[in-house]
Amino acid sequence: MRLSTAVLLLCPLLWMTGAARAERPVYPFTTEARFDSATVPAYAGRHDAVYAYIDAQQDAHVAQLQRWVRQRSISAADDGIDAMVTLLADDLRALGFGEVQLVETPGHPGVLGYYDAGAPTTLVVYMMYDVQPVEPNWRIDDPFAGDLVEHELGTVLMARGAMNQKGPQRAFLNAVASMLAVEGTLPVNLYVVAEGEEELGSPNFGAVLAPWRDRLRQADGAFFPMLIQGATGEAQLNLGVKGIVYFELEARGGAHGGPSRSEIHGSFKSLVDAPALRLVQAIASLTSIDGNTVRIPGYYDAVRPPTEAEQTLVNALAVDVDDAALQRSLGVSRWVDGLTGREAIVRNLWEPTLNIDGIWSGYTGEGMKTILPHVATAKLDSRLPPGLEPDAAYAMIRAHLDAGGFEDIVLRPLSGYPAASTAADTPLVQAAIGVFNKYGAKARVAPWLAGSAPFYQFTRTLDLPFVFGGLGHGWGAHGPDEYMLLRPADGVGAAGLAEVEKSYVDLLHALAEGARPR
Amino acid sequence: MRLSTAVLLLCPLLWMTGAARAERPVYPFTTEARFDSATVPAYAGRHDAVYAYIDAQQDAHVAQLQRWVRQRSISAADDGIDAMVTLLADDLRALGFGEVQLVETPGHPGVLGYYDAGAPTTLVVYMMYDVQPVEPNWRIDDPFAGDLVEHELGTVLMARGAMNQKGPQRAFLNAVASMLAVEGTLPVNLYVVAEGEEELGSPNFGAVLAPWRDRLRQADGAFFPMLIQGATGEAQLNLGVKGIVYFELEARGGAHGGPSRSEIHGSFKSLVDAPALRLVQAIASLTSIDGNTVRIPGYYDAVRPPTEAEQTLVNALAVDVDDAALQRSLGVSRWVDGLTGREAIVRNLWEPTLNIDGIWSGYTGEGMKTILPHVATAKLDSRLPPGLEPDAAYAMIRAHLDAGGFEDIVLRPLSGYPAASTAADTPLVQAAIGVFNKYGAKARVAPWLAGSAPFYQFTRTLDLPFVFGGLGHGWGAHGPDEYMLLRPADGVGAAGLAEVEKSYVDLLHALAEGARPR
Repeated sequence: MRLSTAVLLLCPLLWMTGAARAERPVYPFTTEARFDSATVPAYAGRHDAVYAYIDAQQDAHVAQLQRWVRQRSISAADDGIDAMVTLLADDLRALGFGEVQLVETPGHPGVLGYYDAGAPTTLVVYMMYDVQPVEPNWRIDDPFAGDLVEHELGTVLMARGAMNQKGPQRAFLNAVASMLAVEGTLPVNLYVVAEGEEELGSPNFGAVLAPWRDRLRQADGAFFPMLIQGATGEAQLNLGVKGIVYFELEARGGAHGGPSRSEIHGSFKSLVDAPALRLVQAIASLTSIDGNTVRIPGYYDAVRPPTEAEQTLVNALAVDVDDAALQRSLGVSRWVDGLTGREAIVRNLWEPTLNIDGIWSGYTGEGMKTILPHVATAKLDSRLPPGLEPDAAYAMIRAHLDAGGFEDIVLRPLSGYPAASTAADTPLVQAAIGVFNKYGAKARVAPWLAGSAPFYQFTRTLDLPFVFGGLGHGWGAHGPDEYMLLRPADGVGAAGLAEVEKSYVDLLHALAEGARPR
Repeated sequence: MRLSTAVLLLCPLLWMTGAARAERPVYPFTTEARFDSATVPAYAGRHDAVYAYIDAQQDAHVAQLQRWVRQRSISAADDGIDAMVTLLADDLRALGFGEVQLVETPGHPGVLGYYDAGAPTTLVVYMMYDVQPVEPNWRIDDPFAGDLVEHELGTVLMARGAMNQKGPQRAFLNAVASMLAVEGTLPVNLYVVAEGEEELGSPNFGAVLAPWRDRLRQADGAFFPMLIQGATGEAQLNLGVKGIVYFELEARGGAHGGPSRSEIHGSFKSLVDAPALRLVQAIASLTSIDGNTVRIPGYYDAVRPPTEAEQTLVNALAVDVDDAALQRSLGVSRWVDGLTGREAIVRNLWEPTLNIDGIWSGYTGEGMKTILPHVATAKLDSRLPPGLEPDAAYAMIRAHLDAGGFEDIVLRPLSGYPAASTAADTPLVQAAIGVFNKYGAKARVAPWLAGSAPFYQFTRTLDLPFVFGGLGHGWGAHGPDEYMLLRPADGVGAAGLAEVEKSYVDLLHALAEGARPR
């Protein structure tokens, strides 16, 4: 066979099977050991006087949650923001926080607070005081009325912000108030760092932290109160998140060709470059034919492979993972490449993705309109596992486009931040698991979520272990009928408000007792 | 060099330079001769009595045009259709057409009329009695009032349908009426075939022709009265049109993968196939990287190369083609591959195009929404030169998608019809050119337009030579301020209404005198 013939015969084959040929890394596991959260001793401390106080104060504590959700604070609409900032800062002062500082930013202000307990251990608590907008599709008249609703799971607080995030945050402050009332102080020093732009992507959270950054870095960990129990009590504690780059790609006519002023008649395609086809070709160059392997050189190489500790977490998750159930809930019939079990978990957590969130160009109505559009735009995101940095991702995407002859394609970054992860063996995580175990809420532990959040501000800017989660159940974040479960019905496994508050008391004590001095 | 190494080194190169490698045909010209419309003798016949009658009747003739445009007939809105059908049929009967027949269709009805002059020559005249909708951005109050407006070019009839197509059509009937009034008969037998769905893509025009199809096929040619002079009098006579396939491609989640029910969170991309990426890859597989060469096997091979007669037309067009002027009018800085002159003309007319008219999926608003959409859709069109049939085009596109593994991509045809062309040496075309020459309106002659229209109904269904065009000037078809020039200002080269009508008289006589008996 002559070389040129071989090339011509093989090339289409290689091109068609490009998905299999691409440099997707394989991560061979070096251990089959499984992390077992049951081996972390259940937190054994008892703080009965505080628990009794919490039980006695439940009506007042529910009223505190209602007071918070009744104060509108829709960041996207600048609706109620100033009043909510004042309410939060006043609450901290009323609790006895010795320092409370408003931080102006280019957007909504932040709040920094510090309670000095004179303790050797210090915890940073993150709060977001803003909420999502509301659509008119709620079953209650007013999502800001603070209604208590009888739900099949029990009595719930149904309101915007009930679970995301005012409910658990004010519950945390209720726990703080109870400890102060009964014990006179706190087992740890406490920072509160609050922003009002979480629902906008936290664009100025770094500026909120900046005034106290050096102080905050001296703390022992950061905690984000969050209801992570399902309705039956099950929970997954995630020790991090992926990062993300979210960007637009745009093709327009210009000096390089194509119509620059407006759409033109489609019959000119024979003579005129088509921005929509350019955009499609540019995006197509980023992935394999099946859309599931990223073709950007170096993209996979940057990802940090699973550590042995992470492998043990994955091995444990794989024991009882129910792919079919998750597929059903998503309306998906199969994972890519037919993956299941551990392979699917690894792909989900260590995969840098490339996804089209939206694409649009030209005529999108009924029937036919024969035009050659002058502009085509797409929104894409790429989820970044630890190791793949946003700046590097953007640089590799740009370089790949340029190398493919797509210098004319505009890359417009809208957001970018790296992953965050905390090791399972840090005292804060051990304390959190110990508290879960005390309440019989055995938690699955994942190295991180496949989703993204700017938690690198804690793990990198502040260089702290970071835990987001805790007992309690809620639903409907960003949607209608958002609620937090306050009083579970008989047989419901998830914790109610009183138990959530007690678990926060236990967490602070567990951290104080278990933390190694820095 | 080992074979496998060579393949790996060469394949990316071949892939990147795919545009150059694709099988785009080259059409070497075998003649440099130029068609010269000046060699066609100017029509020499004189019909002074009819001309004088036309001049004397101008006020009445303008009133006839106004009567037509005042009758609304928006096909898309079914607005005035029935009344316009009646008006048209009544006008034919009033003129003396011995047979007038309404043809019901699944859409708007058609009209067939026949005037038997006992002549050896027979002409079919095509009419569309429907018009486009109107937007509220006209400079006159009522686009259906039939206003006469003083324009920089002279007095114009400004109305929806003035140029597209009621003006020239009723002007043609004015010419017929004038011949009948003065000469008592017509020089040719005359069929009128009219539809009310041209603006909807003529979906039922075949059904309109069907009752008289065998009779119509015995005619000597078909004519569509159309104002093709520019404001300064220049004209291009196009002897055909490209065909078209217009279709949607759609990717959805299903058994093969991807979300089937609704969009899902974008972080699942690592595990879930993305319909939007599938659609992008499928479309990308249809063209070269630059979007300008169709990669569908067999697509170019089907095109009939330029005949020697067509080459002479192109050679003549290339003499004074002004690429830069057309580029400026389109807002385009260059043609693809830097083409100019004859090469650009050949590409424009013999190129089967592949164009994205529209594409949409997922989130297209401001800012960020991180979703994996469950459906992605695009509208595409492909212009078909003579030789490339719509059924064959659809079959090749489908086969190419399937061969690329895109069996899951839905191909939804919205329209498809073949090209139409008439040879320059047919008596009808010679008569038309002769009339242009008589009025000093030397016409450039093109083998066909790069645009599409279902004129195959004349050239193939009826197997007739077909000419669309004639003297006269108008502007604004499908847009605001549509007009037909009635009385040109001094120094304006385009013909006014009286001259247009006289040229129709001449065309019928020229055809009668020049047509070879069948």
